[in-house]
Amino acid sequence: MAADAGQVKLLGKWPSPFSNRVVLALKLKGVQYNYFEEDLSNKSEELLKSNPVHKKVPVLIHNGKPIAESLVILEYIDETWKSNPLLPDDPYQRASARFWARYLDEKCLPALWDAIWSDENGRAKAVEEAIANLKILENEIKDKRFFGGESIGLVDIAASFVGYWVGILQEIQGLELLTVEKFPKLVKWSEEFTSHPVIKEGLPPRDELFAFFNARATASK
Amino acid sequence: MAADAGQVKLLGKWPSPFSNRVVLALKLKGVQYNYFEEDLSNKSEELLKSNPVHKKVPVLIHNGKPIAESLVILEYIDETWKSNPLLPDDPYQRASARFWARYLDEKCLPALWDAIWSDENGRAKAVEEAIANLKILENEIKDKRFFGGESIGLVDIAASFVGYWVGILQEIQGLELLTVEKFPKLVKWSEEFTSHPVIKEGLPPRDELFAFFNARATASK
Repeated sequence: MAADAGQVKLLGKWPSPFSNRVVLALKLKGVQYNYFEEDLSNKSEELLKSNPVHKKVPVLIHNGKPIAESLVILEYIDETWKSNPLLPDDPYQRASARFWARYLDEKCLPALWDAIWSDENGRAKAVEEAIANLKILENEIKDKRFFGGESIGLVDIAASFVGYWVGILQEIQGLELLTVEKFPKLVKWSEEFTSHPVIKEGLPPRDELFAFFNARATASK
Repeated sequence: MAADAGQVKLLGKWPSPFSNRVVLALKLKGVQYNYFEEDLSNKSEELLKSNPVHKKVPVLIHNGKPIAESLVILEYIDETWKSNPLLPDDPYQRASARFWARYLDEKCLPALWDAIWSDENGRAKAVEEAIANLKILENEIKDKRFFGGESIGLVDIAASFVGYWVGILQEIQGLELLTVEKFPKLVKWSEEFTSHPVIKEGLPPRDELFAFFNARATASK
């Protein structure tokens, strides 16, 4: 696989769950790539040139051609390297996966982010909103091993913020968002997801993420 | 085509550009369908059951299975009925189309909508923002006939709000957003798009859209 992958380069930011989605997908596919860590306070010329509309990471550059937006990149990866498919073949199941990936990006992750970084005034309402969104996910994962069934797919990768980042961030902020009492099925999925050998290797180390966001939390107090 | 389309039903709202995207795609594919107009102040049981997460139109129900979110529906339609493809075959071009469709939904259409319905206080800033977004589109369409090239594709359908609704809404509100002086290429595309025979037949009648949004504008004054 690595031999015919062409030139693959990822512009990313290591603590970003959006950048990390691309890392996870490339690792699941076994695609070799070069990684370039962006300094977002001093963005590289390559980032500005390859994503002039949003000027954001992640950007995947494959044989010189740039692709931006993490979910767009994941579908590109899935269509370009066929092993370990991230989306099923059936159009209805593909639509369902795309629906949930969009739901995560448009509703669930923003609500969790707001709850995590809310100040005391807005906290109760933001936490309530985040929990309502997690309930919808709990109801979707049900007793499935992964969102797509027996193997890790697009929705699992899109949900890695829920499965990994939230546990770290709620500990830093003293919040109870994703707990085994409230969300036994999501927590079980999260354990299954983060202990998958390829995912485990592809996620940023817990202690480093903790330190990074803890510094941010301390600075904002 | 109609014979093997299965049972296709669309829950929609006629003045909504998002519902109308699905109408346009089905018509381009030659798929026969039943249309059900939703009353959003009294949503049907079928809508609430088929899109419990967002409770929004459009919802496409194909052989009893519901699909929500207009861009997700468009990709489903493209994967289910293969004639007149909405997305090209090449993974890079597909990624590019998905990037622009997302850009429209996440940036461009919200900015235009804000400018159109802004009050006097926020108007100058909202119009400036909308125009900055249209410039990005103008730069993308360049001298292409359609966003995807020679035939109508996903991005053209996703941009129908720009190509059709904006002209009507700016007239109602006395705004100059999309004008031939500022955006000659987008205006040319808009004319090309809305005069395509299938699109022309699939768009809501101009006078009815004008009356609908004019009543809304009058009510909000």
